[in-house]
Amino acid sequence: MIDFRSDNTGRAAPQLIEALAAANDGTALGYGMDPLTAQLQERFAQLFETPVRVFPVPTGTAANALSLAAICPPFGAVYCSADAHINTSECNATGFFSGGAKMVPVTSEFGKVDPAALEAAIAGAGKGLAHKSQPAAVNLVQATDLGAVYGLDEVAAVAKVAHAHGLKVHMDGARFANAVARLGCTPAQASWKSGVDILSFGVTKNGGLLGDAIVVFAPDAAQQIGYHLRRAGLVWSKMRFASAQILAYVRDDLWLELARGANQAAASIAVLVRTLPGVTLVAPVEANELFIEMEPAALDALQGSGILFYRRGPRLGRFVCRWDTSAADIDALAGAIGRCANLKA
Amino acid sequence: MIDFRSDNTGRAAPQLIEALAAANDGTALGYGMDPLTAQLQERFAQLFETPVRVFPVPTGTAANALSLAAICPPFGAVYCSADAHINTSECNATGFFSGGAKMVPVTSEFGKVDPAALEAAIAGAGKGLAHKSQPAAVNLVQATDLGAVYGLDEVAAVAKVAHAHGLKVHMDGARFANAVARLGCTPAQASWKSGVDILSFGVTKNGGLLGDAIVVFAPDAAQQIGYHLRRAGLVWSKMRFASAQILAYVRDDLWLELARGANQAAASIAVLVRTLPGVTLVAPVEANELFIEMEPAALDALQGSGILFYRRGPRLGRFVCRWDTSAADIDALAGAIGRCANLKA
Amino acid sequence: MIDFRSDNTGRAAPQLIEALAAANDGTALGYGMDPLTAQLQERFAQLFETPVRVFPVPTGTAANALSLAAICPPFGAVYCSADAHINTSECNATGFFSGGAKMVPVTSEFGKVDPAALEAAIAGAGKGLAHKSQPAAVNLVQATDLGAVYGLDEVAAVAKVAHAHGLKVHMDGARFANAVARLGCTPAQASWKSGVDILSFGVTKNGGLLGDAIVVFAPDAAQQIGYHLRRAGLVWSKMRFASAQILAYVRDDLWLELARGANQAAASIAVLVRTLPGVTLVAPVEANELFIEMEPAALDALQGSGILFYRRGPRLGRFVCRWDTSAADIDALAGAIGRCANLKA
Amino acid sequence: MIDFRSDNTGRAAPQLIEALAAANDGTALGYGMDPLTAQLQERFAQLFETPVRVFPVPTGTAANALSLAAICPPFGAVYCSADAHINTSECNATGFFSGGAKMVPVTSEFGKVDPAALEAAIAGAGKGLAHKSQPAAVNLVQATDLGAVYGLDEVAAVAKVAHAHGLKVHMDGARFANAVARLGCTPAQASWKSGVDILSFGVTKNGGLLGDAIVVFAPDAAQQIGYHLRRAGLVWSKMRFASAQILAYVRDDLWLELARGANQAAASIAVLVRTLPGVTLVAPVEANELFIEMEPAALDALQGSGILFYRRGPRLGRFVCRWDTSAADIDALAGAIGRCANLKA
Repeated sequence: MIDFRSDNTGRAAPQLIEALAAANDGTALGYGMDPLTAQLQERFAQLFETPVRVFPVPTGTAANALSLAAICPPFGAVYCSADAHINTSECNATGFFSGGAKMVPVTSEFGKVDPAALEAAIAGAGKGLAHKSQPAAVNLVQATDLGAVYGLDEVAAVAKVAHAHGLKVHMDGARFANAVARLGCTPAQASWKSGVDILSFGVTKNGGLLGDAIVVFAPDAAQQIGYHLRRAGLVWSKMRFASAQILAYVRDDLWLELARGANQAAASIAVLVRTLPGVTLVAPVEANELFIEMEPAALDALQGSGILFYRRGPRLGRFVCRWDTSAADIDALAGAIGRCANLKA
Repeated sequence: MIDFRSDNTGRAAPQLIEALAAANDGTALGYGMDPLTAQLQERFAQLFETPVRVFPVPTGTAANALSLAAICPPFGAVYCSADAHINTSECNATGFFSGGAKMVPVTSEFGKVDPAALEAAIAGAGKGLAHKSQPAAVNLVQATDLGAVYGLDEVAAVAKVAHAHGLKVHMDGARFANAVARLGCTPAQASWKSGVDILSFGVTKNGGLLGDAIVVFAPDAAQQIGYHLRRAGLVWSKMRFASAQILAYVRDDLWLELARGANQAAASIAVLVRTLPGVTLVAPVEANELFIEMEPAALDALQGSGILFYRRGPRLGRFVCRWDTSAADIDALAGAIGRCANLKA
Repeated sequence: MIDFRSDNTGRAAPQLIEALAAANDGTALGYGMDPLTAQLQERFAQLFETPVRVFPVPTGTAANALSLAAICPPFGAVYCSADAHINTSECNATGFFSGGAKMVPVTSEFGKVDPAALEAAIAGAGKGLAHKSQPAAVNLVQATDLGAVYGLDEVAAVAKVAHAHGLKVHMDGARFANAVARLGCTPAQASWKSGVDILSFGVTKNGGLLGDAIVVFAPDAAQQIGYHLRRAGLVWSKMRFASAQILAYVRDDLWLELARGANQAAASIAVLVRTLPGVTLVAPVEANELFIEMEPAALDALQGSGILFYRRGPRLGRFVCRWDTSAADIDALAGAIGRCANLKA
Repeated sequence: MIDFRSDNTGRAAPQLIEALAAANDGTALGYGMDPLTAQLQERFAQLFETPVRVFPVPTGTAANALSLAAICPPFGAVYCSADAHINTSECNATGFFSGGAKMVPVTSEFGKVDPAALEAAIAGAGKGLAHKSQPAAVNLVQATDLGAVYGLDEVAAVAKVAHAHGLKVHMDGARFANAVARLGCTPAQASWKSGVDILSFGVTKNGGLLGDAIVVFAPDAAQQIGYHLRRAGLVWSKMRFASAQILAYVRDDLWLELARGANQAAASIAVLVRTLPGVTLVAPVEANELFIEMEPAALDALQGSGILFYRRGPRLGRFVCRWDTSAADIDALAGAIGRCANLKA
């Protein structure tokens, strides 16, 4: 079986497992007081060219929800794309962590928050009226949930609107590596230099195994995050094993190399199928995902052909490439799509 | 330096890391839909001799707080020892997960909940009066936070009181392995056969690295736990890497072997220091911890001698043995205690 | 000044104040254990022709949020109109009371939930998938936030979809009296006989002063509401003063008489302005509110003419009639609209 | 029957009801934007001799829990007497409003927090350690739950300890009037001049009917209280009816006159029973409550004699005087106690 179901169905990069194994040496203080976690702080300050606080956490949902809770009060509103993971796939996690904050979808294309729509939504939100969920935060998903990548100017345009109204900017970077690889920019440019205040730094989807991280650029927000993480059961006592993985992940640009592999696989498939009759790519293929519209019967046939992928509707399939997606996988998928695309129901 | 600071300053058992590495093969569905997690369910049903649901979670705090939230409503009371980890060391986690549930300490010795004190507390709690936090759950820590182990009859006596009043019983088994090893009983006897409804099954402190588990014996409580875990960001998408560790942990009784090592180290130290003048063991040494009272100057000197341990007060030190505590460590600690014990301030 | 701003800018019906004053006699047990509150239970059982539990509460927001929290788990979704008060005007109250439940707006006209849109939304919600907010409740506002009234068949159609999927139905009856008066049906027909499980029974907007009520038709949901109210600080210790008001409110159909007054005022205005050039009623005028579109300059002039009302946008004004809206008020408003409607900017 | 059960079994002062009725005139903006609520702000600034924010709320529990949530983070600890109402009688309300804050009882006599015990508790709390509930607030009940009154120096001593450690001070003034009447001081002296940051200003127990108030002296804490109240359904839309009551309550020192009546009744009873054999007053009678120990058979007989009061244990009865407790009531109670006190079981 050839598996394009999800980033999380895939393998971890061996380097992370080796680093985890190597961390199993001697004793070290718990709960992040160990040398590897200290090293992680320094390494991320270099990586992002600014002082940051980095908190390894078990999951991307934890990273997102806790980041948003740090910048949005219980009576606040979080603006996001309707397609955003926090809005569609996290089982009310942000509401839980924040004590009731509300997701407010704004018009978007390809999963990107539109600055003008954001401006209009905030302007009409009733800031200062106690009846109204108070505008507090914006959530950007980079790369987006439809496989597109915000340009740096696009991030900055959203952040400008947000900051002008006193909102903070959270980036859900579950696929931050894919975006940075695509943009060919620095991590700093892709985040705080474009106005991001707090970042969910994805690892799991890009060759990680059991952890992601929160990176805080807004010093105000970092003050109490340690307590919030602790009371949420999100602080590993043997933190060194988590920090070791993330250090390996960014060592020698491994993370970007992994992401480039996945991105290139997706791009290759896009080239092969884009012009096939009966095949429509519903969003730009700029990271590691393809969203392909075909006739229902064609998708049925594709599912029957040994290709694993998720159906997002009768006519819509999602295909996710990973760091180790092979040339054979690519050819197999493209070939199968070609064979199935023209089927009639 | 010789480290008796904590279970969590120690190494993981290599078998868990090997299992984790071995799980990095091929693709598998995420969020616990993978074959290893399915295998884990079956394995734990065998281990506990009854159908169970087992949920790997990142930390013991998550296991405790979510277990309690599953059996205690927001307006409920959780009875526990004043020394219980949930009461002293989890930064209000149970309050967070449950939406406000209250910890009610009851009189206890050596960290054990006393059945008569529990009976009195529940009887005076105002059950049915809306002003009052409603009795809902009891929390037992096994082994206790003072290093003692409940006998099976002691667990059963507490559970009997709890169940008679309609309360459910949660066991914080961060050191469940140490307790089972000490008691020489089956896991079933130590848990549901003695009246436990839901168990935090500790792994991290006993040779684990990045995960523990919730084991649910009360089918009612299991229904919604999956959603609660998901909205709390506690479900790893690459769950197989967590399940693989826990499978390795219980394979061929590894968990009990590791616990026996730690218990024996503590017992050996107890034998060596028990009769020293100026040394008092404040609780029975039945698991892997020793709580030793000495003159402040003696503890100061011990801290200066290259032995790492936590001070729990001017006259109280805690010493934690681990699965890999060596004979040399044992001798070094006992010798140092002997040298320091008679010092006067 | 002539005031059409809101229901809540108006006076209370004197009968409620007289009843409150009359309750100030002798002593009575607190927290709802008094005879008047017992009488209220019986009276509402008669009024609704079925056993109910009725809980007086301070505000409609408390009634809504607590009702929804009683039927929706923290990981649940509440389907509602985008215009619903819970979605637009309660500062995340439902999220607070429920521990994070999510509002999911479905397509609607005139503020009414559309059964087909509801069916589609539930069908696509991912029931049983832990990532997804789980469908749990539907919220209907009767009369709607745009001044329309659901027909009994319309309520039943929504409830049928909800119940078929295991969801419960909450009716926000802030203007329940206006709806019942309009429909000419019994309270039972307007509620549980049409499928409503729990009702926010509005009093404040229709001649009340400091209280509304929750009416529970679903016995399961009533079990724990007393505790939830108590922990939310929503149970008056001198409850008799609240119950007395509500008893007076429903005595001799006072509540319907008050509502008819308000409805008739709105209807009279509608007749007078409906055909004026430059005036558009954006929704049926079926209760006590009119939503009128006019040129911005016309609305500006109207605001300058001594008529008080709320602007809902450059071209949209909301005009609310109350039980004591006088014929003079009606004529003044209609006359002023007539004078202003044709103004050009 | 002669009723000494509770403050809340009694009548309201007619002046409050008259004021409420008088407020039913014309129209006024909702949600506290009305002239009476504005007047209330000014009046309380005069009363407390400093700028304050005053928020009428439905209940004392709402006032307490929301006040504490305003000064204590979810991961915080609230120090209080074990007898404090927030700890014994509010069904986890503070945990709900704060998102999980923990009550930490400290040693106390007669329900008063002891400054030295507070100092020790904070010193040992582990400030700055993420495992530990972080010290955030102190709760004083004035008069206490055992009928005693803190002297001004006692309040100041507690506040000094609190402020030295960065904690804020909340006073549960459900019986603030009784305390001020007893102390013969100004409201300012009894509150912010002694170090109180935020006050639950009781009305209901002292001749009120359906409301109390939060008074905020710490400007920082007031910023967001309006939103928190709104999302908790605690803001009446017809606020004028609440504000009118509180204005009447403090007009011409009515509140102190009412409290003096209740205090004097309690004092008179104390004088009459204090020296009776078989009668022990377990706490100073300084406000409107008496806690009397007698033989169980004596209390049984007293309950059978037509006197209504609450039993707080086999040997302990609580007797509450109200503003309208009559000389006949006083004599009846004292006489009955005298007759019953010497009975043997």
